[in-house]
Parts: sequence; structure tokens; C-alpha cells
Amino acid sequence: MIPFAGHTGTETFPVRTYDADSTGRAGIRAIADYFQEAASGHARTLGFPAERLRTEQLAWVLARLQITVNRFPPAGETVTAVTWPAAHERHMAYRCYELYTQDGELLAAGTSAWVTIHLADRSMVPLPDFIRDGYPQDNPPCRPFETRTLPRLREEAAGVRIRTRRADLDINGHVNNGHYLQWLLECMPCDRQNELRAVDISFRAECFADTEIVSARGALTGEHTVLHCIRTADDAKELCRARSRWAAPLG
Amino acid sequence: MIPFAGHTGTETFPVRTYDADSTGRAGIRAIADYFQEAASGHARTLGFPAERLRTEQLAWVLARLQITVNRFPPAGETVTAVTWPAAHERHMAYRCYELYTQDGELLAAGTSAWVTIHLADRSMVPLPDFIRDGYPQDNPPCRPFETRTLPRLREEAAGVRIRTRRADLDINGHVNNGHYLQWLLECMPCDRQNELRAVDISFRAECFADTEIVSARGALTGEHTVLHCIRTADDAKELCRARSRWAAPLG
Repeated sequence: MIPFAGHTGTETFPVRTYDADSTGRAGIRAIADYFQEAASGHARTLGFPAERLRTEQLAWVLARLQITVNRFPPAGETVTAVTWPAAHERHMAYRCYELYTQDGELLAAGTSAWVTIHLADRSMVPLPDFIRDGYPQDNPPCRPFETRTLPRLREEAAGVRIRTRRADLDINGHVNNGHYLQWLLECMPCDRQNELRAVDISFRAECFADTEIVSARGALTGEHTVLHCIRTADDAKELCRARSRWAAPLG
Repeated sequence: MIPFAGHTGTETFPVRTYDADSTGRAGIRAIADYFQEAASGHARTLGFPAERLRTEQLAWVLARLQITVNRFPPAGETVTAVTWPAAHERHMAYRCYELYTQDGELLAAGTSAWVTIHLADRSMVPLPDFIRDGYPQDNPPCRPFETRTLPRLREEAAGVRIRTRRADLDINGHVNNGHYLQWLLECMPCDRQNELRAVDISFRAECFADTEIVSARGALTGEHTVLHCIRTADDAKELCRARSRWAAPLG
């Protein structure tokens, strides 16, 4: 199940009933949660956990995440997330993910790009030396993002309003990334969530509790993909842009 | 850690980062999730899981749940939920819960009351014989509910509007019980969720996606407790009524 000998972290999860969506399966958010949990543990092992960054007034921020899915596991199945840090650049570090069944079936894979920010003014800073020095040099690269950049959604064909809740906040006091993955689906045709095959999302701004936002998408034109935008309702501030890819044509 | 020799089920959970709220701790919903997960597994062991009921066109419905909390565990701690079925009446079955650390510290305890319904018309039916026959006879009772009944909130002093999402639905196609526990807190003073010491909630009606609801509470009058009502916004249909109890006086 471990894809190569090297600096990987793993974490095993029974898929809980409360991880499951209305179809009884761990959905895209649960998969992202499993990946993130494995990554936190592994960053701790490598010497650059969130706590270490906090002592230097820094924080990791997830800038972009792509997840491709072969099959969503039902509640009751046990899955193992494997993660490894791959290349890094001056401002950005990459971390890869794979999700396996206990028989070694690849359920999902992911690629993430991280930046470091100053906590005081939220400005992006070059990766600090202790991260660069601790970064494994010879890990294989992640699966590439399906496109180099994510285009902005220009024309909204449909949208659903969402009001954020205190319950959506994480320990950073802002809406947790995982929620945006679920919210992309709110404006899609019903009951097709198991046909989702990939999401590529870039996180552009933070959002807090009790805010009216819109999860919008482009027109469904018989393609397998569609662009998304999650934005505030009143001043249209872009919170996320994304592209989803589906097993069957849309529209 | 097991409170007595007998028909108990247990399930162990590392508290995940994604189980944690903005204070970094598993909140009231996560505790209810742990209890419910342990209960599902145990009902399966005893021969009356949800799947068995479904073959007879029946379902378990949670009617009332009380949880008392000594301490909310932080992410990273490992907890064990213990559950056992206690008494049953003609229409109602009781199930008890306790949550422990690995050192045997009692973190939380719960009492739940369940009814069985016909799936076709959602009407309550007497507990079927296969449940009554399989019910352990000599388990100790649950902690009693703090009050015999839950009074209806008569005067709303504050309320927060919540719009339900597809992401709130569970495999039964309705808003999952656990969400209501979180939503009670949305209209309380900020950042006091770790001072919550007990919730007693009764579930009165189902709710589905894309519905405007209100989480309302009574006046904070220097007492430790307050009444809650979760209702639809337009026709004030009562979805839940509840009472919360807090470590410090309210208001």
C-alpha cells in the first residue's frame, strides 16, 4: 500500500457513520479530512507542525488542493491515508496524498500546495529555513494539477446561498477548508455526488461566521467539467475558485 | 473503565482535528457522534441494527437525548465510548452512554430514548418482538433525565437564522440529529462552549435541505440554565426543544 520507500506518513480511519453523506459514503470533504489529518501527524514527525510555526508567528495556509476519486468508501470500510511532502519552491511546498482500502485498492489521490504566512498581518513569507532544511529531498512528485492555473468563473449559471455558522469554524477561527469542498456540490444536480471524479480548488480569502455567501457554477454544457466560484453575497469577494470533473457529462 | 459486567458495547476514537471546534476540542456534537457510533455497532451485536429494522419497514428514531459533560477532550486525546441498552417500555427503549479517557476519567455521560416508526407513514409503532426479546434484562438504568419533561420555550429572547444545506443530511435524507446540538450554541454568548455542562434535547419533527430555521433561546437571567427552541422560520414548526446547563451563570 505504501507507494515507495521513503518519507511517508500514514493514518488509518474506519469510515464512521458520521463521516458519511446522504448516500452513506465518505464524501469529498471526509476524504480531504483524512488527508489533512495524516498530513498534520506527518508534519509533526518531520519537525514542522503547526505548533512549531506558531512559535515563530507563522502559519501554514493551504493554497490549492486537487483530489481525484476512483470510489467513495461506504461507512464501515476502513481506509488508510498515505502522505508525503514533495518538491518545494521559495514560497510554496507541495504535499501528496493517496487513500487506500485495506486490500490496497487506490480510492483517491491528492495534490496540495501550501504557503507560509505571518500571523500578524497574514502576509505570505518565503518558507522558513527550518522547513526548507527539514524537507525530504528525494520523494517522488505529486500527481500534477490537471491544469496549470484555475480560471475564474466569468458567468454564473446557477448559485445557492449559504449562511456560514459558528459550527463551520476551525481552530484558526475561520471557515474550515473542508466545508468549501462540500459547498461546491450544493449547486450541482441532486444525488450525483458519487459521480464526482475530481475537484481542483484554490483558496483565495478567509471567511468567518454569520456571513452570506454564494456557491455558484457555470453552465452545464454536456462537458464532464464545470467551473465554480464561492464568493460573498454582498460584495462578491472571491473566497474560492474551483473546477469539478464528473463521471458522466453534465447538463 | 467498563462500568459493570454485562451487555455493553465500546468503541475507541482518537479525537481528530476535524472533530474539533474553534477551541480545538471535540464539542457536544462530536461527543454525540461518538455515542451514536458506539450504539450502532452495539445494536448490530445484539441483533437489532438499523438494517434489520429496515427489512421490516421500520426505523429507530431518537426521541430524546441528554448529555452531561465534565470536560471536552482536545484533538489528539483518545476517548472510549461505552454504551448499553437499559429498560424498555411498550413504545420506548432507553440506551445509556459514558465517555472515558484512556486513564478512566469520565468525560461525559448520556441518556437516550428511542422509538420505532413505520417507514411508510412515519407513524410510531410498539417496539417489535425481536427487539423486546433481544433486549438485555439486567442492565443498570441510565442516569435519569434532569427533568421529567422538557417545557416549550414560550418567549424567545434571541435567535439566529440558519439555512440548512444538503451537507447537513444523513443517510435518512433528513438533517442529522447531531447538527441540532451544535445549532443550539449558535445563539449563545460567544466562546463559552467549553462551559456547557449539559444538554437535554427532544426531537419533534424532521427537517430537510434548503430550509430557513431559527435557533432561539429564552432570556439569560443569571441562572445556569436556559430553554431553547429550534423551529422553521416561516411557519414556526417546532423541530427541537432543549434545555442547556452551563458552568457559570448566564446573563
